[in-house]
Amino acid sequence: MSLDETARKPHDLMAAYLATDMERVNALIRDRMVSEHAPRIPEVTRHLVEAGGKRLRPMLTLAAARLCGYEGDHHIRLAATVEFIHTATLLHDDVVDESAQRRGRPTANLLWDNKSSVLVGDYLFSRSFQLMVETESLRVLDILSNASATIAEGEVLQLTASQDLSTDEALYLKVIRGKTAALFSAATEVGGIIAGASEERIEALRIYGDALGIAFQIVDDLLDYGGKSAVIGKNTGDDFRERKLTLPVIKAVARASEEERAFWRRAIEKGDQRAGDLDRAMALLARHGAMEMARSEALDWADRAKRALSILPDHELKGMLAALADYVVARVS
Amino acid sequence: MSLDETARKPHDLMAAYLATDMERVNALIRDRMVSEHAPRIPEVTRHLVEAGGKRLRPMLTLAAARLCGYEGDHHIRLAATVEFIHTATLLHDDVVDESAQRRGRPTANLLWDNKSSVLVGDYLFSRSFQLMVETESLRVLDILSNASATIAEGEVLQLTASQDLSTDEALYLKVIRGKTAALFSAATEVGGIIAGASEERIEALRIYGDALGIAFQIVDDLLDYGGKSAVIGKNTGDDFRERKLTLPVIKAVARASEEERAFWRRAIEKGDQRAGDLDRAMALLARHGAMEMARSEALDWADRAKRALSILPDHELKGMLAALADYVVARVS
Repeated sequence: MSLDETARKPHDLMAAYLATDMERVNALIRDRMVSEHAPRIPEVTRHLVEAGGKRLRPMLTLAAARLCGYEGDHHIRLAATVEFIHTATLLHDDVVDESAQRRGRPTANLLWDNKSSVLVGDYLFSRSFQLMVETESLRVLDILSNASATIAEGEVLQLTASQDLSTDEALYLKVIRGKTAALFSAATEVGGIIAGASEERIEALRIYGDALGIAFQIVDDLLDYGGKSAVIGKNTGDDFRERKLTLPVIKAVARASEEERAFWRRAIEKGDQRAGDLDRAMALLARHGAMEMARSEALDWADRAKRALSILPDHELKGMLAALADYVVARVS
Repeated sequence: MSLDETARKPHDLMAAYLATDMERVNALIRDRMVSEHAPRIPEVTRHLVEAGGKRLRPMLTLAAARLCGYEGDHHIRLAATVEFIHTATLLHDDVVDESAQRRGRPTANLLWDNKSSVLVGDYLFSRSFQLMVETESLRVLDILSNASATIAEGEVLQLTASQDLSTDEALYLKVIRGKTAALFSAATEVGGIIAGASEERIEALRIYGDALGIAFQIVDDLLDYGGKSAVIGKNTGDDFRERKLTLPVIKAVARASEEERAFWRRAIEKGDQRAGDLDRAMALLARHGAMEMARSEALDWADRAKRALSILPDHELKGMLAALADYVVARVS
């Protein structure tokens, strides 16, 4: 891909537009991830932060605040808060999933140990909390503390829903609203709040973040059955190996013949996975059109996100947020 | 032990005095540990909360607030906050320490799995955060968010200080200030703040909590080399097996002969532990008077805690807090 093509990605356009703010966010992140006493902390966080995630969530906060005309400093703190919460959950996720790769690099739990991942995650979570307290906005604190609880709840729910073939689409939606959309929607909502936007606009930003997060996670779950490891930074089939009931699998299970059901029961419920099982799973997803159906739902959520933007003021960032919703789904085309 | 003797313990006297408040704290804890969506959460927390810890930390918050004449409701929320933070750190500690027993019962990571302990800990931590936001006191939020970061930092520091014979008493103090005293001092300090006490009294409460926490942890570390599993709810020698450099060991290592040093290097640094090693370690602690020296330091911290109380108003709870400082150290007599 040429540089020109890269520059045309909505994500990169937005990053360019918000470059000055993002530089300040990155400086604040570097500043706050330091620990005077425990050098292990910056070692671990640097590994993760410098792996160069897309910084999507903090950018959403910056965009929401700027779109609503904010001129102060607190959006920088809130963007760093959101990235710290995200990084903390990644560290704990990798322990929970026993992952070996994240963003195309070995995970912290593999490079150091599970202990470091758990404790450094706790540290980043506490740091995020300190940062948001500095905004002195009780409403912002309320939203972000609720989002944190919803994230943790979603992760626990995913744990118990895994390996359980009776997991349906409603439960799946609850899980991804928790583990992904809660932080997206809090990120956009607090941007509006700190900017002193009207209640109507704040609600529109919340709905945009929620729908974008859901679309994003559905697509992530699709890529797990079809993306290339180099593109998504994790390995195809991770979810299958971890016996997670994601949307395409739920759709294929609902349409399974007796014989196919026996396969899912063995591979997902019993965890008795054999050579060729991932290929067979992907063939079943294709046979029932499960990938296509799930992609169509992701498109619906992206549309919902774009519609929510309609009442927001005219602004270059408004177009970029709409383009971002399209782009998130275009990753599976 | 007869009921009369039990009733004479300072901890139980205080619990009796604060019984109405503690009942409300317990009700709030039960209410907030519920999760609508994820039944695994109350399963795990109930296991831990109902194991009947001493509820020492929430009692400190209640006592500090009442001692300063508080008549509102927020001390109940703050006491529950403090207990949730404590419970969350216990869940994560057990993962980190790979513990099998806590409060005389199997640990959650053994009964369920490490995943549940990590995620339910995150959930409780988020819940604690929601509770403290309800007090609408930015100063309280500031103190508790700082305490959370200090706790996590102390735990990471302990991780890297373990297995390292060059760990000295100054580093040990930093570790236990983080992992234990930070929450004790935040517990007493926020009690004073919510009661609107004078700055002088708030500072006295903070110093009391800090010194009590340090005394408490030194004694805990002593008990690990001499307490009975039934009394402390964990097994003698856990710290030795986990190769932790606690105060008695640091003192014995500082006074070790060449041959003794080789023993500590093998057992603690290299982790090559053999049958009879724990007995040998205990004999070395005795030979150098390490237990007695550490106990004497715990007594000094208890005295410091009691001296801090002097400027606080006359109140039945003041005497109980002083007696508690004595009692904490009397566990090793």
